[in-house]
Amino acid sequence: MEETAELAQRVETVLTQYIDERTTAAEDVEVHFASALESLSGFVLSGGKRIRPAFAWWGWVGAGGDPDSAEATAVLSAVSALELIQTSALVHDDLIDASAVRRGSPTVHTAFADEHRAREWHGDAERFGLAAAVLLGDVALAWADDMLYSAGLPADVLRRAAPAWQAMRTEMLAGQYLDVLTQVRGDESVSAAVRIDQLKTAAYTVERPLHFGAELAGAGSAVIDAYREFGANLGVAFQLRDDLLGVFGDPEVTGKPAGDDLREGKRTLLVALGIEAATTAGREDAAQTLRAAIGNPDLTAADVTATGELLADLGAVDAVEGRIEKLTAAAMEALHSTEIVEPARTRLAEMAVNATRRDR
Amino acid sequence: MEETAELAQRVETVLTQYIDERTTAAEDVEVHFASALESLSGFVLSGGKRIRPAFAWWGWVGAGGDPDSAEATAVLSAVSALELIQTSALVHDDLIDASAVRRGSPTVHTAFADEHRAREWHGDAERFGLAAAVLLGDVALAWADDMLYSAGLPADVLRRAAPAWQAMRTEMLAGQYLDVLTQVRGDESVSAAVRIDQLKTAAYTVERPLHFGAELAGAGSAVIDAYREFGANLGVAFQLRDDLLGVFGDPEVTGKPAGDDLREGKRTLLVALGIEAATTAGREDAAQTLRAAIGNPDLTAADVTATGELLADLGAVDAVEGRIEKLTAAAMEALHSTEIVEPARTRLAEMAVNATRRDR
Repeated sequence: MEETAELAQRVETVLTQYIDERTTAAEDVEVHFASALESLSGFVLSGGKRIRPAFAWWGWVGAGGDPDSAEATAVLSAVSALELIQTSALVHDDLIDASAVRRGSPTVHTAFADEHRAREWHGDAERFGLAAAVLLGDVALAWADDMLYSAGLPADVLRRAAPAWQAMRTEMLAGQYLDVLTQVRGDESVSAAVRIDQLKTAAYTVERPLHFGAELAGAGSAVIDAYREFGANLGVAFQLRDDLLGVFGDPEVTGKPAGDDLREGKRTLLVALGIEAATTAGREDAAQTLRAAIGNPDLTAADVTATGELLADLGAVDAVEGRIEKLTAAAMEALHSTEIVEPARTRLAEMAVNATRRDR
Repeated sequence: MEETAELAQRVETVLTQYIDERTTAAEDVEVHFASALESLSGFVLSGGKRIRPAFAWWGWVGAGGDPDSAEATAVLSAVSALELIQTSALVHDDLIDASAVRRGSPTVHTAFADEHRAREWHGDAERFGLAAAVLLGDVALAWADDMLYSAGLPADVLRRAAPAWQAMRTEMLAGQYLDVLTQVRGDESVSAAVRIDQLKTAAYTVERPLHFGAELAGAGSAVIDAYREFGANLGVAFQLRDDLLGVFGDPEVTGKPAGDDLREGKRTLLVALGIEAATTAGREDAAQTLRAAIGNPDLTAADVTATGELLADLGAVDAVEGRIEKLTAAAMEALHSTEIVEPARTRLAEMAVNATRRDR
């Protein structure tokens, strides 16, 4: 696990250096803009597990990339660029969801709206917050590409990895859009919940980063297929564990209040299975109770506990646990279906265990 | 001028093909997302003068790029990608400004909010419109990079052109941010108005596209310096003409109601010079009249006429006309300061005349 922490540290160092360089260059362009960029920099560097760079890095190593080669420096920059995509996704997602807090700090749109109010500027504070969040998220998205394409990778390597990179960004945005659309349409189906998990978490967080790393190493189709199978399964399992923790997790461990997923109206597979089970069993009252809980911002801790008990009673919790188990097993099988260079296979297996275990 | 129309047509063909390919690929990913992309495609293809691709293309030709070479196809794709950056900028800008109409059609956030209402979906229609506009603007920004990097340009060419491309996107976002910040701070200064014009219009619309085109051709510093000087001057002149047309223009020619810049509270150089002149002359009443007009959504046509007359009376209109003349002359001088390959020099000179003439 020491290697994991060390990799996260190296990603952070490379990111800090890149953002500092760009921010310094921006000071010559526009000093107020450069100062707005500070908040972006704070956001990128304030934490996160650097999970996407880690999958891409170990994907590269596992496909034969040599961490001691000259190319490793360029690869580290390229995989670190994934964090800038993630920054853009979070800044825009928080705006879309109107979330006020992330990682214990105000979200970008909230921070800029607060500054507007504190300085008693003209016009609407929320609108200013919106503008700043849209534009800073755009900066992060643009810089992600800049960082990748100036990482110093050979042209043929970049060309090989481009399709995975392109698919990753588009699938992430497709997942975000489907998530929003599913909520407004009130789509309770199990299939919609699964599709969002496949796009937002599996493809974007695990499968494509691994695929990208493999292409950087010039992997053959056996390794790429194994990675994608591993990622598609593990990514969904990972999201399902997150959904369970969102309702049943210990806030001290998860870092967010239990039940926030419910309050925010997130259409998780857990809930979809609960409503489906209630409907199939003719327990329309139970289905209605669940529907009333989803998206109710005033849900108390007791309501959350009761909703969790109802979901367990309906068999939805067991069903989700069962899926996690199956998906994780399928992921592990894929990981052992072909030759993956050590220590990458061990690291990926550890990440799979960590991402899906109950006490995460 | 026939060449100009033909180039715009070729840009449109390449864009249509690129967007169609990506949208078709997205159908396999998520059918609802693919259908949202249709509206992006409609937006990109619904018009615009393709001015940025034109500056980049003629910049390339003027620096020795051969339109009949094999590389020309790749260059055409690369310069067409500028329209995707512009699409992202417009979609996000319309959201930030809460503009309901663009080019005679509903803006993206408005169209999606309308659909939400028409289908009686759950939750807040405006919030759904916001989400769709944020995500589709992100798609356009991501695809701009994808289109550039998969245009088929040789690696050394891409590497050479990357700094201009990167600076262009960051400067555009810096300009947008400064524009918003200047409005909320109520900054009436001439210097802030000039800086916004330099970033939003000059750098992003003229200077960097030319710079980018020149780098694609492997131009030397004499041509690049000449282009940048030409672009920096012409771009501001272009914006100043736009500002005058925004107050005095014929709606039938400009395509938007006279005075909309005033109603939207845009801090143009024209207004900044008016307020400065009024203050210097001790005409505090005139300064107040201008302040009251800026950002007043209920301004009538008569109010707009009166504001225009006041700006003329204060000497602001003559001052802006004087600046346009000087900037255009400086641009033309730069264009003739070194060898620019024909017909590019003639085309660029024509574009300069068209962009700054009174009856545009």
